[in-house]
Amino acid sequence: MLITMNDSATEKEIKRVTKLIEEMGGNVHHISDGQEVSMGITGNESTLQAAEISQMPGVKNVNNIGKPYKLGSREMKAKNTIVKVGNVEIGGKALVMIAGSCAVETVEGTNEGGRLLKMLGANLLRGGAFKPRTSPYSFQGLGKRGLEILADARELIGMPVVSEAMDTDNFDLVEEYVDLIQIGARNMQNYSLLKRAGKSSKPILLKRGISATINEFLLAAEYIMAGGNYNVILCERGIRTFNDYTRYTLDISSVPELKLLSHLPVLVDPSHASGRRDMIIPLSKAAIAAGADGIMVEVHPFPDKALSDGYQSITFEHFTELMKELRTIAKAVGRSL
Amino acid sequence: MLITMNDSATEKEIKRVTKLIEEMGGNVHHISDGQEVSMGITGNESTLQAAEISQMPGVKNVNNIGKPYKLGSREMKAKNTIVKVGNVEIGGKALVMIAGSCAVETVEGTNEGGRLLKMLGANLLRGGAFKPRTSPYSFQGLGKRGLEILADARELIGMPVVSEAMDTDNFDLVEEYVDLIQIGARNMQNYSLLKRAGKSSKPILLKRGISATINEFLLAAEYIMAGGNYNVILCERGIRTFNDYTRYTLDISSVPELKLLSHLPVLVDPSHASGRRDMIIPLSKAAIAAGADGIMVEVHPFPDKALSDGYQSITFEHFTELMKELRTIAKAVGRSL
Amino acid sequence: MLITMNDSATEKEIKRVTKLIEEMGGNVHHISDGQEVSMGITGNESTLQAAEISQMPGVKNVNNIGKPYKLGSREMKAKNTIVKVGNVEIGGKALVMIAGSCAVETVEGTNEGGRLLKMLGANLLRGGAFKPRTSPYSFQGLGKRGLEILADARELIGMPVVSEAMDTDNFDLVEEYVDLIQIGARNMQNYSLLKRAGKSSKPILLKRGISATINEFLLAAEYIMAGGNYNVILCERGIRTFNDYTRYTLDISSVPELKLLSHLPVLVDPSHASGRRDMIIPLSKAAIAAGADGIMVEVHPFPDKALSDGYQSITFEHFTELMKELRTIAKAVGRSL
Amino acid sequence: MLITMNDSATEKEIKRVTKLIEEMGGNVHHISDGQEVSMGITGNESTLQAAEISQMPGVKNVNNIGKPYKLGSREMKAKNTIVKVGNVEIGGKALVMIAGSCAVETVEGTNEGGRLLKMLGANLLRGGAFKPRTSPYSFQGLGKRGLEILADARELIGMPVVSEAMDTDNFDLVEEYVDLIQIGARNMQNYSLLKRAGKSSKPILLKRGISATINEFLLAAEYIMAGGNYNVILCERGIRTFNDYTRYTLDISSVPELKLLSHLPVLVDPSHASGRRDMIIPLSKAAIAAGADGIMVEVHPFPDKALSDGYQSITFEHFTELMKELRTIAKAVGRSL
Repeated sequence: MLITMNDSATEKEIKRVTKLIEEMGGNVHHISDGQEVSMGITGNESTLQAAEISQMPGVKNVNNIGKPYKLGSREMKAKNTIVKVGNVEIGGKALVMIAGSCAVETVEGTNEGGRLLKMLGANLLRGGAFKPRTSPYSFQGLGKRGLEILADARELIGMPVVSEAMDTDNFDLVEEYVDLIQIGARNMQNYSLLKRAGKSSKPILLKRGISATINEFLLAAEYIMAGGNYNVILCERGIRTFNDYTRYTLDISSVPELKLLSHLPVLVDPSHASGRRDMIIPLSKAAIAAGADGIMVEVHPFPDKALSDGYQSITFEHFTELMKELRTIAKAVGRSL
Repeated sequence: MLITMNDSATEKEIKRVTKLIEEMGGNVHHISDGQEVSMGITGNESTLQAAEISQMPGVKNVNNIGKPYKLGSREMKAKNTIVKVGNVEIGGKALVMIAGSCAVETVEGTNEGGRLLKMLGANLLRGGAFKPRTSPYSFQGLGKRGLEILADARELIGMPVVSEAMDTDNFDLVEEYVDLIQIGARNMQNYSLLKRAGKSSKPILLKRGISATINEFLLAAEYIMAGGNYNVILCERGIRTFNDYTRYTLDISSVPELKLLSHLPVLVDPSHASGRRDMIIPLSKAAIAAGADGIMVEVHPFPDKALSDGYQSITFEHFTELMKELRTIAKAVGRSL
Repeated sequence: MLITMNDSATEKEIKRVTKLIEEMGGNVHHISDGQEVSMGITGNESTLQAAEISQMPGVKNVNNIGKPYKLGSREMKAKNTIVKVGNVEIGGKALVMIAGSCAVETVEGTNEGGRLLKMLGANLLRGGAFKPRTSPYSFQGLGKRGLEILADARELIGMPVVSEAMDTDNFDLVEEYVDLIQIGARNMQNYSLLKRAGKSSKPILLKRGISATINEFLLAAEYIMAGGNYNVILCERGIRTFNDYTRYTLDISSVPELKLLSHLPVLVDPSHASGRRDMIIPLSKAAIAAGADGIMVEVHPFPDKALSDGYQSITFEHFTELMKELRTIAKAVGRSL
Repeated sequence: MLITMNDSATEKEIKRVTKLIEEMGGNVHHISDGQEVSMGITGNESTLQAAEISQMPGVKNVNNIGKPYKLGSREMKAKNTIVKVGNVEIGGKALVMIAGSCAVETVEGTNEGGRLLKMLGANLLRGGAFKPRTSPYSFQGLGKRGLEILADARELIGMPVVSEAMDTDNFDLVEEYVDLIQIGARNMQNYSLLKRAGKSSKPILLKRGISATINEFLLAAEYIMAGGNYNVILCERGIRTFNDYTRYTLDISSVPELKLLSHLPVLVDPSHASGRRDMIIPLSKAAIAAGADGIMVEVHPFPDKALSDGYQSITFEHFTELMKELRTIAKAVGRSL
């Protein structure tokens, strides 16, 4: 439910409406376009009485939101949401590049790589400390040590960092060290983790599950927002289909669809979507042309020696070329990079 | 790696081999057919030196296991594993029926339903206390109260109970109250949860993710076994395909395939696979004919009033009919029910 | 539209109704349960005026058929259709086994194989003369010579034969030589071929396309029936999914679903569905348990030397075992074999 | 097999090599980059003796082609193929726009629509005369009359036309009237039709089947090329996945992949891929950014009154906007429009 207040509504009127909503068992979310005072209401819809609310002083109108996701929907908020991560804005006119190795490996590699990536135009540094691996016998990441390396790199380089939280246990740690917390594709419907993310003060990068529908994806984001954390960034990273020439199938249509249905920023990860470095440039260009707000890409100085996902990582030279090509596309679609 | 000892190997020799393995950084798992003394070794394969191990006194032979999953593979153990849940054996000649409502709702409903199901031939009572729901605004289960109701029903009826643990936080609670702990499809690659399950003394019912390959499914089971919990039951519950007439697509071939590759018991859940009650009987019959060790099915006295998944629940009358038809099939495939 | 006539309706009344329908631009199909005189009407629904028709003398009632497929639907005909191929009935109480090599190869192989299969319990002999091959450089079948070999085998052995027609050009030839004409999965939506099949006096075995929905499958059958050929047998042969351990994924749920929606017989082809000979027995058992009317299977004396699809063919020994196991399942589901 | 001749090779030497190949049972295809004299050889590889061929006078070298498709592969020909349709070049620097209504409906609509589309920048006019429809009771197209209307429009407007041939029967007719013959997605593995197309002197637009792998798609093109018709244009039009918000899922990665593996031109059809007019512009932009050689789109003056596929057609206003946006992207990727 979306409640819009009159321009002339007083603080007192807003508080009274808030109190009524809470008495009805609803939760009030202040998700504003910056133009009007409006409140998103979530909770059991059967106990929220629109008629009564609409008669309160100061209330301009009360609208039901038809979609199953409420706070993330365009109906709740028409304007694009811009999520701030450190000094970087995601979802605005400027495109965003998140780059780095799949897993944090060494201090030197992270620092030097990060410095170079920043110089080449990357905005955020990525690096996995806790790695979700299909096999229990594969390298599982450096854990806390990885986060420390990443956080040190941020201080040294002056570039916000992003890393994945895999469960409610290590969430606190990741939250402490990084600027943007990633929830991976395998955890997109790990509702306990989503609820924990909803209590965080840090922005969340939510990756689409490999077989999630758009509806399920937006409902996963809704879990986070319903908890009070409205800084959610969506990331398409490929779906599982019968295709056998790429690791997953980049669902390019999801970009305009998510933009249509939601006000949240949308990124694309061509590295995981394709699993092939020779696909990174064309898929990134397609993503920006289709309306994505940025790219998340794996870069490694020596891809073939990477501890995980080397076959899909690109080199710094390749990243330089990617930036060059994306700048041209960005301009063509009225964005900057 | 699988180490088989000579029949005449002494305790001391076994201990010495164990010590060597641990010095090499490996973990020793005693997964035995009951015929020979054998040890499954997991860990970093590059540090485990087969040549050295095979020369230890008492060692008969050392075999590498070619599959990425080790402890769950047929190569590790040729004989079927039988998992005991209370007084019920899963994976033996007798088929197993797990039945009950999707979510635990009331004391009376649970007790009366359970009693009736037991009388009709069910072996385990299922009921969700913590419910993974696509929307944050849907009924999320009764939580601890649901577990209490379920545990009380067990005492009253004398029937083991199964319920889902959704995260590492509520795992302890579920572990305390139930006899068999379910890990749901959405959590099949929640590795933190799998690792926690590996430390449990209770058996685990692991459901296949809706887009998991057979390899990924067996590797998820391997996470649990690598932690030392070898009582894992696999459950096929449908995969996501383009089909639009059932909610998911029951992958019937997975039953013989899992039986071929692994010694673990395999159940089939036709309720979630199809999402349609008129499919339960034919799909259950197909599952047993294909070699499944049992069926997990949703039964509700008034399916249309169920708090979740009512459209796929069957009535007690329908369950009676299901039991009758399955008994005939069971006999035809040399099983009992 | 389904028109049911009174028991006492005269030939003259039936003719008058027929004439009216044709004047309205409709086509009359006599698809009867043997109990009542009824007529299925197809054509542009907007020009068929139910009210006017229902007032004609002799008309008991007029019902619209809600499904997009009409003649193949259960609404049109409640009783199962039994298709006769030579002296074999498909769709009745007795199950049907269609067996033989993927491609017709030699006179001796076909005759000896056919004789043996008949002895072991097969009802129809299959063999491809025109082979649809993914590559233009693969063996394309013996063509007319293959059909002659097959037809000679029929005379010698006394067993009806089935072979595939790949296009409207070779349909005449196939129709001349065989008893049951197969339309393959790749051609399920080759509408010109379906229309040609609708003009044939021979029964048609229609295989489901690898990504066809149930609705599309029944509409493909409808193309044949709308042309006047009501002897259509449906065959599930696996759909394409992300699964990588079988060639396709047997959609076992399609069997009860097709039986529910349509009165046409339903067979299952485990050879193409799985592409693996070790899957044939469990999948065949599952198919019969789920309600299929029979099995279509590839058998070859020396599978590894077969000119096509050898890896999925079973030997005669294996077929003997299959028959034995299926007889037990058949009995359990009230069928004979 | 690819045979490259010396620059100094004489006509006589080429003829001698050709004769030898034919004696060995091979077929010679003159697929040249325009730089060297080279010959693509197809046929049974076991009878083609490379050693003997390489010793013939004038032969520079003989290479085996590792891919299952030969003539369509980059190994056969490194340079992009440009297919000429009337005065339009497909596959060159200039992008190509194929536009028009799904089905040819009226003379006026076709002429006026075509004139307008040409003015707005379209290069080819599309229109279906023979329509493959899922239901036998849907509008099946105007047939020959539709082709006449289309051919008249070409004369009037001076714009090449494209229409679909559905079977070997109506292929002759379509071939007579149009400039570019389409083979639809449902017929991608209709091998009889592909072979007929291989004998045509007109270029072929081959659409990818909704569940075809890239390998199967290129092998379908190979059927046409093996017959001697090298003017094949590939068209990605969406694959079938679990996605439910677009009709099919545009497989954007197929564009760079096809470009990598083959020298044939690649178009994208966003209308069928998405089934939604609000997706046409972003998907077209993505396609061009990913490297496609052009777009095939459905345009209809009154989409809601279209006899087929109206929901996915765009208006002329919408097409004007599409052209404007694509021109900017085209420039950004070094193409013209």
